[in-house]
Amino acid sequence: MRVYDIIEKKRNKKALTKEEIEFVITGLVDGSIPDYQVSSLIMAIYLNGMNDKEVTYLTDAMAHSGDMMNLEELFGNTIDKHSTGGVGDKTSLIICPIVASLGCKVAKMSGKGLGFTGGTIDKLDSIPHFKTSISKDEFIRQVNDINISIISQTGNIAPADKKIYAIRDITATVSSIPLIASSIMSKKIAAGDKNILLDVKVGSGAFMKTKKDATELATKMVNIGKNLGKNMMAIITNMDEPLGNNIGNSLEVIEAIEILKGKGNKDLRELCIILASNMVMLSKDISYDEANKMVIDSIKSGKALDKFREFVHYQYGDPNIINNYDLLPKSKYSYEVIATKSGYITKINSEEIGKIANILGAGRNTMDDKIDYGAGIIMHKKLNDRVKKGEVIATLYSSKKDLTDAFDKYGSSIVIGKTKIKKPKLVLGYIK
Amino acid sequence: MRVYDIIEKKRNKKALTKEEIEFVITGLVDGSIPDYQVSSLIMAIYLNGMNDKEVTYLTDAMAHSGDMMNLEELFGNTIDKHSTGGVGDKTSLIICPIVASLGCKVAKMSGKGLGFTGGTIDKLDSIPHFKTSISKDEFIRQVNDINISIISQTGNIAPADKKIYAIRDITATVSSIPLIASSIMSKKIAAGDKNILLDVKVGSGAFMKTKKDATELATKMVNIGKNLGKNMMAIITNMDEPLGNNIGNSLEVIEAIEILKGKGNKDLRELCIILASNMVMLSKDISYDEANKMVIDSIKSGKALDKFREFVHYQYGDPNIINNYDLLPKSKYSYEVIATKSGYITKINSEEIGKIANILGAGRNTMDDKIDYGAGIIMHKKLNDRVKKGEVIATLYSSKKDLTDAFDKYGSSIVIGKTKIKKPKLVLGYIK
Repeated sequence: MRVYDIIEKKRNKKALTKEEIEFVITGLVDGSIPDYQVSSLIMAIYLNGMNDKEVTYLTDAMAHSGDMMNLEELFGNTIDKHSTGGVGDKTSLIICPIVASLGCKVAKMSGKGLGFTGGTIDKLDSIPHFKTSISKDEFIRQVNDINISIISQTGNIAPADKKIYAIRDITATVSSIPLIASSIMSKKIAAGDKNILLDVKVGSGAFMKTKKDATELATKMVNIGKNLGKNMMAIITNMDEPLGNNIGNSLEVIEAIEILKGKGNKDLRELCIILASNMVMLSKDISYDEANKMVIDSIKSGKALDKFREFVHYQYGDPNIINNYDLLPKSKYSYEVIATKSGYITKINSEEIGKIANILGAGRNTMDDKIDYGAGIIMHKKLNDRVKKGEVIATLYSSKKDLTDAFDKYGSSIVIGKTKIKKPKLVLGYIK
Repeated sequence: MRVYDIIEKKRNKKALTKEEIEFVITGLVDGSIPDYQVSSLIMAIYLNGMNDKEVTYLTDAMAHSGDMMNLEELFGNTIDKHSTGGVGDKTSLIICPIVASLGCKVAKMSGKGLGFTGGTIDKLDSIPHFKTSISKDEFIRQVNDINISIISQTGNIAPADKKIYAIRDITATVSSIPLIASSIMSKKIAAGDKNILLDVKVGSGAFMKTKKDATELATKMVNIGKNLGKNMMAIITNMDEPLGNNIGNSLEVIEAIEILKGKGNKDLRELCIILASNMVMLSKDISYDEANKMVIDSIKSGKALDKFREFVHYQYGDPNIINNYDLLPKSKYSYEVIATKSGYITKINSEEIGKIANILGAGRNTMDDKIDYGAGIIMHKKLNDRVKKGEVIATLYSSKKDLTDAFDKYGSSIVIGKTKIKKPKLVLGYIK
């Protein structure tokens, strides 16, 4: 087999076989295929696409290029939830304790975040003494004991995906649906969960900008998972404004606790209930209504919050943060953004808000950057909220003193209009 | 400027600017742009194409990436002829002396050949004592003295083209019309001639398999040349059977001399007269009929053959070869291919015939291979010739003893049928 012929085949828009895809992935990892042939093939895939079979082969080959998590030592089916990410997305911190409190097993490995704000692991790292690096044995024992553990990705997970991503990143081939789908799913397959719920976000604050693209990506990922023997489901959710009110690592932990307390932002609460209900339905094989009732009850009764406390405590974190947010990191400086006129918030550019959070110090631009855990934004006003001229619409937190840039940017990311707008629905579709 | 944005632009099927193309070519040559970004861009160009402006910028940038020949020291306009190549194509050896005998200046630099047989330089190198490596001063003096010099490419001609070609060769991106056109034309532009005649071959023995592709390539090249201030013309010629009767280096020198003597293969003679007439028309700006009359007279009067003799002598070769072919290298072994039935030759697979010539030793597979100058094929029978069972249809020459493979291959490359076929025309079109 020659990589030349494989490139030529994809260049001619023909489907690659399982053997051809495995040949490329093996050669890529062992270095026998040079990067310039890989990048050429990736551009051909970008422009000529891949069918569901090819994407499944690619996902499976990338998953098997490194360590495969074996979750068979766990009692019962595990469930994983993956979000394609968006500004203010702290749903994992809320949903995982809820479903764990209802008997589902959450054995979650998560990566550190690059971009606007940190990932789930960074948010957990903002909790004093919380340990996100524990041994695999501890991880398994914890899930068997309390149904939940979330740790940072360890070992050699899908190295082929890492290498391909590094090439895509510098050859303008990131935004390819088959390549995004196989990249996400290769890590999910390597993680070993039987049930997987995908939250595919669409809108100005998300990677997918249109419902069409989000649906295509979700469908591809659901098909890949099914082809590889998983119980799959995807939910397309709206991301035209940041999720909830808080953006930034410790600020998002606080907001997550508020939701678990039955309080906080209505949209965020509603979305978490929908996502959690689907996870319970998927892993327990019960009706949505039944699952939904259990989820609502778990929050109302305090079981979900108890599970969160247990989870934080088990991973060496300080559970007192739940009743005393001052124990969490807080940035030294805060600035208030004031409304320049009266009216309703009619538009929020989520991407710009994300960039501001990054400027404040809440995110990383390179893997070596240090996160300022207390930095971020509290948005006091969201879409359709009424504001009065001079009223505080947001508070920015940072360890940096001069925040004029972030300050000005916030003002130009928000539109204040005369009348309310028709807000898009929270959930735009389901793919099963 | 970032190469990432340039790749993204071409990926999105947008036209690149002169500055963007120059940025890539400069970075490619100085090594600041890595090969994997170049190969990614090349695949995007392969699949999304390039318009005439872009191809012109690319050609010009590649031409200027190395030495530019300055032919201004020559008295009068020079003319170059380039053939896209095919099995048995020895037209340069015939046409260049003809047009030089008519006062046109031929200052030709040519590369060594890879593939079926050698290139023009290898054919000349088969003449005893002929020197294809002479200094630039000698080259210029010779053209001013006798109107013709053909030397092997010296110096650093279009290094960007060399690098891009090396990448294309291993990433299945050779067969792209804009990339082929710019590769050929970059070397022609660097060679500095004012008038350029292109002979674009089409058929089983040529790189372009259809008239459509050949026309597209010819049009692209003519447009590039015109955009860069050259007098351009292209002729699309048929290559469904090898050109003439002889294939191989010294065998082709013999056939060229035969044509200059007014003898030899009728098709080859006719094609050479057409090509030479167009060159004379192009460089002297006279009518075709006038030029054609001059060309025919040059052969008839012996002026063309005299010019060939003068040319060989000036470049230190032995002019006695003209009257004594035994002075040329001859392979030790020869084998006759016999017709297995009677009828007419109805098909000749030129590509296979070329491969046989290569097996016999007439060509190189890598630049380090040594050519067997005497090796090759004399085809006694061509399309529509009548053959009798048992008659000799070809003689194979080689220094290797065991030629069973080549022998068998020849038999299966020829079809003998019951009736004559309709032979395609020699010239399929003109692009001006």
